[in-house]
This record gives sequence, C-alpha cells and structure tokens, in this order.
Amino acid sequence: MIKISVLGYGNLGRHLAANLSAQEGIQLIQVYSPSQNPEDNQEVALINDLKNLEPADLYFAAVSDDAIGELSLNLPKDCALVHTSGTVNMAVLGNQSKRGVFYPLQTFSKNYPVAFDQIPICLEANNPETLALLDEIALKLSKKVVHLNSQERLELHLGAVLVNNFTNHLYTLSQKHLEQKGLPFELLHPLIIETAKKGMAIGSESAQTGPAKRNDRNTIERHLALINDDRLKEIYNLLSNSIREHTKSK
Amino acid sequence: MIKISVLGYGNLGRHLAANLSAQEGIQLIQVYSPSQNPEDNQEVALINDLKNLEPADLYFAAVSDDAIGELSLNLPKDCALVHTSGTVNMAVLGNQSKRGVFYPLQTFSKNYPVAFDQIPICLEANNPETLALLDEIALKLSKKVVHLNSQERLELHLGAVLVNNFTNHLYTLSQKHLEQKGLPFELLHPLIIETAKKGMAIGSESAQTGPAKRNDRNTIERHLALINDDRLKEIYNLLSNSIREHTKSK
Repeated sequence: MIKISVLGYGNLGRHLAANLSAQEGIQLIQVYSPSQNPEDNQEVALINDLKNLEPADLYFAAVSDDAIGELSLNLPKDCALVHTSGTVNMAVLGNQSKRGVFYPLQTFSKNYPVAFDQIPICLEANNPETLALLDEIALKLSKKVVHLNSQERLELHLGAVLVNNFTNHLYTLSQKHLEQKGLPFELLHPLIIETAKKGMAIGSESAQTGPAKRNDRNTIERHLALINDDRLKEIYNLLSNSIREHTKSK
Repeated sequence: MIKISVLGYGNLGRHLAANLSAQEGIQLIQVYSPSQNPEDNQEVALINDLKNLEPADLYFAAVSDDAIGELSLNLPKDCALVHTSGTVNMAVLGNQSKRGVFYPLQTFSKNYPVAFDQIPICLEANNPETLALLDEIALKLSKKVVHLNSQERLELHLGAVLVNNFTNHLYTLSQKHLEQKGLPFELLHPLIIETAKKGMAIGSESAQTGPAKRNDRNTIERHLALINDDRLKEIYNLLSNSIREHTKSK
C-alpha cells in the first residue's frame, strides 16, 4: 500500500486527493490546508498545521507556484516530495533529498469533474526510486504517462497556454461580441467542438479556413467595421496577419 | 418532391450535394462545375455550362463569395436562388426575384465528413414562399434552423472566425512551437477537447485559468523567453493583456 498525503486543497489538490484515494493500492493519509476547518470536511483527514503531518511514502505539494519553495523548506528533509506545477523547476524542492514533479496536463476547475484516465501525466524525479514510485502511482490514474525534465515541461506548458488559455479567451470575446449584438452564442457550440476535433483529426494546418487564409480583404474589413472594442480589433488584425503570413510561407 | 441543383462543387458544394440528395423528398437534378470533367464523376449529373441547366425548384450558389454576384447575373431572373455564404448580403442576388440565403454554420473540408444534423442552418429569404421552402429543406438536414438577416449573419460569422479560424491557428502555432522543441503536440490533444467542452459546460469566463488570469508576471516572462518567433511573442503578449484586462474589469 502506497501512503500519500496531499498538501494544498485548491482545484488541483481536491481532484488529486479524490482520484488518488479512489485507486487500489493507494492510501490517502492526510490533506493539508491551512485555511480550511477540519470540522467542515469529514471526508478526508484534514490538518491545518504541518506539525501534525504523519509519515507517508510521498507528499504532493499542490499549492500555488509561488508557495512551493516555502512549503519545501517547512517539510522534513528526508520525505519524498513532488510538486504539481507545469512551470516550476524541480530544483525549487531543494530542501528534500528525494524530489520530483507530478504534473497532470489538464485544466482543473472546482466542481467540474475531470476524467484522469485521459490526462497525460508528466513526471520527473531526481533519483530512479522516486521516479519508479511516481510511475506506479501515475499509471493507476492514466494511460498516458511521460517523463519530461523541467525545461521540457515549461515548453509544454507554454503550448498548453496557447491551446487552452488563449483559445478559451477567444470563446469569451466571441460570446461577448454576439451578446452585444443580441445573438445567441450557443449557435457557435457545434463549431467549437468541431474545430477541436477536426484540428486533431486532419491537422490544424489542413483544417485552416476563413478570410485571413484566403486573404479576403473585403470580408476582413467588413468584420473590423463591426467591432466596437479596440482591443478585439487589435487581436483580430494580429491573428489575421499571422494566418496570412503562415499561409504564404508554406 | 423538391427539385434542387447545386452550383459550385468545392468543399461546401460537395457536402451539400451529397447530404441533400440523401434526404427523402429531395431530388438533386444537377451539379454545375465549370472545371470538372463530367466523365470523372458519374455519381452526379455534372454540367460545365450553365446553358445546360434544367428547371429546379431551388438553386444553391455554393461558389466563392466573390463569384456569387456574377453567377446570379448568368441565371434566369425567375429561378429561386440562394447563396451559402456567411458574409455576403442577400442583395447580391439582385437579378433573381426569389432569392435567399442558406448558410450552414460549420467548417467544411474536402474528404472530412460533416454531421449535418448538428449544424445550425441560418436562413434568409426575400419572400415568405421561398423562406418556407428553405425551412422545409433545412429541417430535413438539421434540428437547428434559425432565421437571420444579412447583418446578423455577418455578426455571427465574425463570432465564428474568432472561435474557429483563430482558435485553429493557435493550435498550429502551439504545434509548431512544440515541434521546434522536439516535443509531441499529441500530449495537448486531451486538453484541446476538454477546453472546448468545458467552455461550453460552465462558460468560458468561469473556465479561464492560467498565468495571465492570475497576473503571474514571472511565468509570463519565462514563457516569453522560450519563444523564438517575434509574431508569436506579439500574440502571446496581446492575448495575455486582453485576459488580464478582462479579469480586472469583472
């Protein structure tokens, strides 16, 4: 039985604690959250103070990026500690002799379920034994487990920002624009799903369509004339130019 | 039996001809393509010359936006003609007394199948009889049929460019960046699908995460340092600023 504790109980901490404790062969010992009242949550053994930490085979630091270093300093040197961030270098856990990274590449929101078996989990460790332990745990959660060093993980995280953060923001801008004009954003829902599926099925370069791809200045100008928001105009122009350059350079 | 002909045999023309002719109560009379050899395609009655056009209840002008006006001028004044463009005003079909628009809001690529029943079809006509005919045909293809005038359709098309053209281009930029760094873009596939689904399930504003949303300057600077391409740097900065402004203004 692998004993684990989850330190930090935000979006990712909750999803991790719930999904790890549901696996056979894993026992969730404690969850650490400085702000939450243990009496409000009877489902997990919640502690507010690291002094009450019990022994475990692995500790997950599922706190915000900035808080990982300090948490590391407040934990025993001989515990095995991993953080769960896409961007933080493993070296930040310098206080522990056994350290690593357990980064599930997905977007987590409170109260929105996540199918962990579809999520790539990116692992790193500073010694073979810890890496083997991470492999064993990760493979219980997901079919897709990869080993990446801290630099590769940061590159991948940048790629994720482009396809998640920025794409999601474009949904918001589109919805805001249509609402201003009294049109239902829901009409675009099938297109949104199809765009994601098709980009993966035939490759996004083959899937690219639209006025910028065709260099259709007339439509581009008519679109720009509809946009009231200067920032959105700027985004429309920049992405259209980028598509056009990309099309020309092929 | 409703008799139709499809004029133009590009991506949309092909999908339309195939899907309309498969519906009960619809008969595909002819397909017009000036460039294609009729002997190369025995599946449809293909003509190269509009002189050979036979009578039909409705003609679909599925040609490029710029070519719609000229096609209209080359067709009889008394035929019922619709175009299929998201951006072109119905008035461009001024030569026909019965005119309209039949705009399926989806992205079409050659050799990639489309499930028409999930596609919103946006209709417009200059008289009630033609609109009723368009309703009857559209409802055979899709459960989601709406009436929009030319101005509303253009606004919707702009919204579609944001969630499809620009989003798809971000996939391309992300893939290109990861390939430069020797990392497999496929690791981001689950995130791409989840982003689309979650944005619709809980709303993209609630679903927004990432360094720009948290105003995490440290991560933003480290990402920027990884990017070699100036255009991508510009896009990263602009979209991050837009997310930050949007977060502050809420």
